[in-house]
Amino acid sequence: MKRIGIIGAAGYTGEELLKILSKHNGVQVAFATSERRGGVGVAQLFPHLPMYNDLKLCTADEALGRDVELVFTCLHAGESVKWAKKFLDRGVRVIDLGSDFRFKTPAAYDEWYNMRHPHPELLCDAVYGLTEWYRDDVREAKVVGNPGCYPTSVLLPLLPFLRAGLVADAPIIVDAKSGVSGAGKKPGETTHFVSVNENLSPYKVGRVHRHVGEMEKEMRAFGGGMNIVFSPHLTPLTRGMLSTIYFQLAGQKSRDELFAVVDDAYANEPFVHILRDRLPNMKMAQNSNFCFIGLVKPAGVNQVILFSAIDNLGKGASAQAVQNMNCMLGFEETKGLL
Amino acid sequence: MKRIGIIGAAGYTGEELLKILSKHNGVQVAFATSERRGGVGVAQLFPHLPMYNDLKLCTADEALGRDVELVFTCLHAGESVKWAKKFLDRGVRVIDLGSDFRFKTPAAYDEWYNMRHPHPELLCDAVYGLTEWYRDDVREAKVVGNPGCYPTSVLLPLLPFLRAGLVADAPIIVDAKSGVSGAGKKPGETTHFVSVNENLSPYKVGRVHRHVGEMEKEMRAFGGGMNIVFSPHLTPLTRGMLSTIYFQLAGQKSRDELFAVVDDAYANEPFVHILRDRLPNMKMAQNSNFCFIGLVKPAGVNQVILFSAIDNLGKGASAQAVQNMNCMLGFEETKGLL
Amino acid sequence: MKRIGIIGAAGYTGEELLKILSKHNGVQVAFATSERRGGVGVAQLFPHLPMYNDLKLCTADEALGRDVELVFTCLHAGESVKWAKKFLDRGVRVIDLGSDFRFKTPAAYDEWYNMRHPHPELLCDAVYGLTEWYRDDVREAKVVGNPGCYPTSVLLPLLPFLRAGLVADAPIIVDAKSGVSGAGKKPGETTHFVSVNENLSPYKVGRVHRHVGEMEKEMRAFGGGMNIVFSPHLTPLTRGMLSTIYFQLAGQKSRDELFAVVDDAYANEPFVHILRDRLPNMKMAQNSNFCFIGLVKPAGVNQVILFSAIDNLGKGASAQAVQNMNCMLGFEETKGLL
Amino acid sequence: MKRIGIIGAAGYTGEELLKILSKHNGVQVAFATSERRGGVGVAQLFPHLPMYNDLKLCTADEALGRDVELVFTCLHAGESVKWAKKFLDRGVRVIDLGSDFRFKTPAAYDEWYNMRHPHPELLCDAVYGLTEWYRDDVREAKVVGNPGCYPTSVLLPLLPFLRAGLVADAPIIVDAKSGVSGAGKKPGETTHFVSVNENLSPYKVGRVHRHVGEMEKEMRAFGGGMNIVFSPHLTPLTRGMLSTIYFQLAGQKSRDELFAVVDDAYANEPFVHILRDRLPNMKMAQNSNFCFIGLVKPAGVNQVILFSAIDNLGKGASAQAVQNMNCMLGFEETKGLL
Repeated sequence: MKRIGIIGAAGYTGEELLKILSKHNGVQVAFATSERRGGVGVAQLFPHLPMYNDLKLCTADEALGRDVELVFTCLHAGESVKWAKKFLDRGVRVIDLGSDFRFKTPAAYDEWYNMRHPHPELLCDAVYGLTEWYRDDVREAKVVGNPGCYPTSVLLPLLPFLRAGLVADAPIIVDAKSGVSGAGKKPGETTHFVSVNENLSPYKVGRVHRHVGEMEKEMRAFGGGMNIVFSPHLTPLTRGMLSTIYFQLAGQKSRDELFAVVDDAYANEPFVHILRDRLPNMKMAQNSNFCFIGLVKPAGVNQVILFSAIDNLGKGASAQAVQNMNCMLGFEETKGLL
Repeated sequence: MKRIGIIGAAGYTGEELLKILSKHNGVQVAFATSERRGGVGVAQLFPHLPMYNDLKLCTADEALGRDVELVFTCLHAGESVKWAKKFLDRGVRVIDLGSDFRFKTPAAYDEWYNMRHPHPELLCDAVYGLTEWYRDDVREAKVVGNPGCYPTSVLLPLLPFLRAGLVADAPIIVDAKSGVSGAGKKPGETTHFVSVNENLSPYKVGRVHRHVGEMEKEMRAFGGGMNIVFSPHLTPLTRGMLSTIYFQLAGQKSRDELFAVVDDAYANEPFVHILRDRLPNMKMAQNSNFCFIGLVKPAGVNQVILFSAIDNLGKGASAQAVQNMNCMLGFEETKGLL
Repeated sequence: MKRIGIIGAAGYTGEELLKILSKHNGVQVAFATSERRGGVGVAQLFPHLPMYNDLKLCTADEALGRDVELVFTCLHAGESVKWAKKFLDRGVRVIDLGSDFRFKTPAAYDEWYNMRHPHPELLCDAVYGLTEWYRDDVREAKVVGNPGCYPTSVLLPLLPFLRAGLVADAPIIVDAKSGVSGAGKKPGETTHFVSVNENLSPYKVGRVHRHVGEMEKEMRAFGGGMNIVFSPHLTPLTRGMLSTIYFQLAGQKSRDELFAVVDDAYANEPFVHILRDRLPNMKMAQNSNFCFIGLVKPAGVNQVILFSAIDNLGKGASAQAVQNMNCMLGFEETKGLL
Repeated sequence: MKRIGIIGAAGYTGEELLKILSKHNGVQVAFATSERRGGVGVAQLFPHLPMYNDLKLCTADEALGRDVELVFTCLHAGESVKWAKKFLDRGVRVIDLGSDFRFKTPAAYDEWYNMRHPHPELLCDAVYGLTEWYRDDVREAKVVGNPGCYPTSVLLPLLPFLRAGLVADAPIIVDAKSGVSGAGKKPGETTHFVSVNENLSPYKVGRVHRHVGEMEKEMRAFGGGMNIVFSPHLTPLTRGMLSTIYFQLAGQKSRDELFAVVDDAYANEPFVHILRDRLPNMKMAQNSNFCFIGLVKPAGVNQVILFSAIDNLGKGASAQAVQNMNCMLGFEETKGLL
């Protein structure tokens, strides 16, 4: 039984980690922190998790001294890294579900997050936790930057085509739809039920959302120098993400040849499923670590449309984080996730 | 008080017509038909419309003889035209909310609807009822083909740019999201609450949806020879439509110059509103005949993103039909709609 | 054209008043106030109300001097009355959609609202605006306390039976379900989309909700001395209210005799509809001033179940307020509401 | 590894069984039947269950000969028993998620289901599978009638009070709210998204719903001779059930004494949780086998209000069925369920 900790357990990703880990029989949650709710029982805050009957939330400071092998940090940009640093200094490995370890260079972080990275020296050792593409590095990593939800949903279908040189040098259109839990737990006008219900709203459209930088960084790593045009939309549901991706094909490929590209990339992957006879939808992926990928090649244009469905809190956050933890701690990669 | 009739009043567009017309003090609903519900009171079928206390549904056959000036046909492809023909022969004007009068040529209809048009001789006189662009013709028309919901939401923002020659010769991406009422009232697996709720699903993607033909026909009329790549998505809400449209810009234009194009086109239009400081969302347009248009020009790419929000049953169907009726019968165009 | 004003126009009831009044051709909105949004255009804040293109929100202080016949106050308990007082002093009539004029005595107000009424001297002249039961008084009233949403939905079906002496002396169970707009526009944990969606929650159960006092006060006025046991539930939808009311029957009555009681009470009422062959549901009443009433007399017990459906922002707030305004200003009672 | 089978796997309860059992490492699904989908892969029908990659749906006839220890029957009233009989004759134990084994006597079944029970001789040996109250009998049972969702949500909170003699001899009011999955997978007007969304509807109100018979049968077994007045409501969400139960207290008891009654009954139960400081809501129980119970004793009346929240497909159907399976096959009762 390996001991792990969660920094920032009262938010949606922390809650989801607690839920997933309660069914993982190889680890034990040694602590779960919340600055505002220190002293409150986890099962009191989350009645649906009565199995944590004996665990009380504590502050991150109180947690520092406890003996754990790995810590999940689930805080905002600039906050996660502060606690990550302290645990790394104590020899504890870190998976950050925030956004502080997703870039390799401080310059990129500064540009997209509009602040100085507090510990730029940590970035060079950080591994980008898109497990299917970096699992060898993840296994050895001291610190993993768990990918953002949109980048996960876009990179998984897109990278095989970039790697194969099949994407023409033209802007890639990403029209993405997310459930509201992706906007976080803090109440505000945009997440009020009445604002979201019976509504659907684009936001941060173009090349301004922070995830554009994260996606393009990975695209570059696989030979893709083109830009992304990104339109995220807030949709009236709690959990789910569907990305519709349009790219211009380089050269000529049949539908079967295109499917072969993703089939080959993910043939042995337990969490990535290619759909041939139907298109993905959000519901397929809900409450799971799955990513479902679909592909359409319309007649009369040399374009490809990719579809991918994930759960923004699952493969898009906490479940992928557990997948990474399994790699790091030597468990079977699917443990607790199937 | 002018007398009008509704053929196919038990479906969503018929119900919405009844609702709108109940607040229109220039017309009186002389009949409303339903083959399955003949004899049932309108107020019994629709308790929220008690003002139709004295009106009973009848069959279309029973309605034929009644004295009206104009009839709305709200039936499936191939069905509307049969009744339209009979009323036209009696000198009654027709607005078809089905899809039988949206094409000018029988060949186009046959191609996209995969059947022979029952009365091709009627097509040459039919007027396409996108009111803002064809109102002079609508005024005189004997028969109006009320536009489809997706085409309305796409053409209103796009036509000004096509007319101005600002759209490059490359596929236009239309990523559209619709509420479930657009799928009609007939129960089926895809419209079961459990299938739709907490879900979001693409369907008929690429160049296969019938509305692609309708949109491209109008694009051609305004100088646009390029193809549309169209991805409609079913979204978990009842009424609303948001279309996100990506096109490559021909030449160089600033954001202000682009806004000027739509501002000029719709400056005096009571139902089309250009938003500068925020993006449209579905809720703005609900239960109205409004279309809200937004525009983003992302940095670093020569692309334009257009957004448009309508109510699929409002401007996308019954409200636009009433707008057309107002033109045809000589009422102020906004009557009953503001 | 009579001039009216709205104090507190940025909340849900204010917004709904603006929407209803935009279709009422007998009045003109001379001002609409918001302390936080003074100077902002109404059409800018509410894009779906472009007809208010020329109206800017102002502060209540700025509004005081303007010439109006009637003012709607839409503020929290203790706030409405302050502005009501100022307008009453200027000879302007007031309809309060807050809760400051629903009780006849300061003691009752103090008990249920847990504060001293700022102007108890105004209470004796206030009329309770349940229009169907008090319209003669409303016509002459200087100030009307518009009923709460729950009381409206409970009193309309219940009062006829109390008046007829058909309710036994035992607790009346009211199990009520409300849409989220009833909780107001202020963001908070309980109205966050993720908290409400796919959920249904009882709150303030028993005899603690403020509306219990309001309901019992009216019951007493019609001969009902029994207590209410009240369970409100928050439901995952925006607008709507359904109250299920269980009372023990005094004496023996058949189903037909029971229906006759409500039929008689509301035979000539344009907004109250008795359903015989089906039960009310929330959707029937949405976006209207209607109240739908149903009744079940189960076999084997001497109990009656009443159902009533209203829109909590319609008959439960702003539409009923306009109904009261019509009475006060001498318009036809249904004007702008059908 | 014990082998089990599922008759009727394409419906909601069958799908949920497949999902739960995929995480239960003590059993293997040997077959899953569907008359309409024989030959289709389970993972093809349910993309979210890719772990059943090797299992194809077969017809019940084809399944009959296969070697299993236990079969779940998930068919309509009158259908389940036919297959149950065949498997019982082969020595296979049966858990029926339909409604054919919930009554002890054919007469009761005939009365509430309005048909002759096809195999009345099987009823005397059937055990009612409300696990917390009948687990000793369940362990030995040949056939278990898995309780209905409403009865589960009502009996769990109510039985402790009946057993203790604390319920006065007066009608018990049960106002229950259910998610739409409880209405089954067959498409129809009442389950169309547009009918349910933004709506809330009472149905089968009074003493007519079949579950009234099931509830009263169990109440009688624990000393409760009073009648139930039952109002089920359809609510706009997929999974969840909240029952609000009002009964008159026999004698005088404090809040603490009332809590002690349920605390004592469920102190050692892993799936039943008593909430003291807050009320249950649907979300707590979603996707679990939990039942959350709350209690309010209003001032001034001698009434008690009980609240219970379950997942209608979880504790209300498939999860409770697995709990019963665990008892029957000698597994720990929580296996696969926590």
